[in-house]
Amino acid sequence: MQKISSRISSFPHFVSLPISSSKIRKMAQSINHEEVHNLLVTVARQAGDIIVRAVPHVQTSDTKKNTADLVTETDKAVETFINNALKEKYPDFDFIGEETYKPGMRLTDKPTFTCDPIDGTTNFIHTFPNVCVSLALCVYKLPVVGVVYNPYTTHLYSAIKNQGAFLTMPMRSDNTAPGNAPILPQKIRLPRRSKPDPLLGLENALVAVEYGSDRTGHNYGIKTRAYTKLAAAKEDGGKMVHSLRSLGSAALNLCAVAAGQLDVYWEGGCWVWDVAAGWLILEEAGGIIVDGNPGNWSPAVDCRRYLAVRPAPSGQKEIVEEFWSVLDGDMDYKP
Amino acid sequence: MQKISSRISSFPHFVSLPISSSKIRKMAQSINHEEVHNLLVTVARQAGDIIVRAVPHVQTSDTKKNTADLVTETDKAVETFINNALKEKYPDFDFIGEETYKPGMRLTDKPTFTCDPIDGTTNFIHTFPNVCVSLALCVYKLPVVGVVYNPYTTHLYSAIKNQGAFLTMPMRSDNTAPGNAPILPQKIRLPRRSKPDPLLGLENALVAVEYGSDRTGHNYGIKTRAYTKLAAAKEDGGKMVHSLRSLGSAALNLCAVAAGQLDVYWEGGCWVWDVAAGWLILEEAGGIIVDGNPGNWSPAVDCRRYLAVRPAPSGQKEIVEEFWSVLDGDMDYKP
Repeated sequence: MQKISSRISSFPHFVSLPISSSKIRKMAQSINHEEVHNLLVTVARQAGDIIVRAVPHVQTSDTKKNTADLVTETDKAVETFINNALKEKYPDFDFIGEETYKPGMRLTDKPTFTCDPIDGTTNFIHTFPNVCVSLALCVYKLPVVGVVYNPYTTHLYSAIKNQGAFLTMPMRSDNTAPGNAPILPQKIRLPRRSKPDPLLGLENALVAVEYGSDRTGHNYGIKTRAYTKLAAAKEDGGKMVHSLRSLGSAALNLCAVAAGQLDVYWEGGCWVWDVAAGWLILEEAGGIIVDGNPGNWSPAVDCRRYLAVRPAPSGQKEIVEEFWSVLDGDMDYKP
Repeated sequence: MQKISSRISSFPHFVSLPISSSKIRKMAQSINHEEVHNLLVTVARQAGDIIVRAVPHVQTSDTKKNTADLVTETDKAVETFINNALKEKYPDFDFIGEETYKPGMRLTDKPTFTCDPIDGTTNFIHTFPNVCVSLALCVYKLPVVGVVYNPYTTHLYSAIKNQGAFLTMPMRSDNTAPGNAPILPQKIRLPRRSKPDPLLGLENALVAVEYGSDRTGHNYGIKTRAYTKLAAAKEDGGKMVHSLRSLGSAALNLCAVAAGQLDVYWEGGCWVWDVAAGWLILEEAGGIIVDGNPGNWSPAVDCRRYLAVRPAPSGQKEIVEEFWSVLDGDMDYKP
């Protein structure tokens, strides 16, 4: 017995022990979302402090499946710190983190923390400060609390289900002398504009896409052909979007869409820990997120293919359909 | 006489009156670079205040040569403000600004201010806060003072010829409680790391590229084929760079290269007002900037084709040659 239970407890975050649906319901009902939110904020800020004190180097980074799939000691150390901190307060919840993920792990109905210790590892290694900690609590396979924190800018995005989405950031007050203004943290409701503009189709859109680390084969072909078609002039059969952006962090892309600073973000290949927090922040801001492959308006949070659209009084459905029409096939990323 | 001189003075910034080389030499020698620097910093911050107070909309923006070449009333108002402020202190210097440029205008030997009132207009219109004011003084066709200011982040990059490059930004001190730290402006020498890492070729590089507003024809073909080849896996003949970034501001891209946060930035089609300030900031940080077309190590500042490489103890020349080898033709942007 001793041996078995110690074996189980040495993998507490990799396996979800069988648990009855009534026990899950009881666990879910007992969650105080506000308390979880405050813990995730505290933990994200502490994790951010580890990140900003690290000195990453290209030479000392490691690779996973190929030379563009990077990981550092800091990714692992931050995930361990977060896992321990969450486990201490919520020992019964599951945990799915980028650095401890094992193939086959999926979201279940059980309360589960998702954790990307450093979203934007390539940026981090190159000291490009578009990097964040992304933490969420999912229950019944949907995020109910989400926190995304960029420790370099100290921008903190957060949301609790049905309570709106917010950005806490240092801002100077408007009526002070330029350059000498006191800079204080302020909490702003998302989207940044209380009355966002209508969406006016792809030809008026700022669209985020990413190259990721899969750079060959079927999925990569669908992506690169889509990028070319999105950007190209209309006389060449293109959509002539206002522009494409590639910023290197899925979570921060979703938050920028939630803020109304990007119109659309399309992604294939990223994981539940990249998107769960940003998903909730986006939905709470009034944005929508659908499948990155055409046709599915209600994808699973861990489906790995996403199309996110900013809050708008009109044009969301239309821009999704227009975007889907650009794609010349289905990406085959599988959870 | 009256009539002619008033006609000339009504176009003070469009035409460079004939001037002797000895007078130019005298003007150049009398310039106090520190004073010009301080004026550009003040003017950039004031211009930034106009920018952050503006409320741009996609619907009310205007277009120039096509639907992705955007301009707003704010671009024009900011340029007018800057032009007037610089003219007041330096009435004899020339001025080349994005919004008042006329075809054929080129840098001359004469002291000339270059001005991009809003670099990143597409970002500005979409409220994506990667936007800057870019101001430089060029003498004998080379920048001697450069200032790039992002009014949303309040990051200010600046350089004086032979005096190094700096970033002034709000930072929290390291030993205070996370989230509650006082945030104060600090002036940091560029690159951010006093001992930057060596460059290790394109396969280890973070590379910035932009889509711009020319999305058809010869130049666009060279660009999109280069993007695909840079990103693609080696088994497909690609360079498998760590990743591509598209951030939407040439001046801020150059500053990020100067800071050591991007390894390489390649561009075709932007203008002297986009690059003059960033060019000096990059060179003063220890980076290099060469022609975006293969072969020319000493391009003119207004040549419209650029390849910028970050400060590094080794690998700069090698990564330029490797990058040039990716290109399958010359871009034909002309000054």
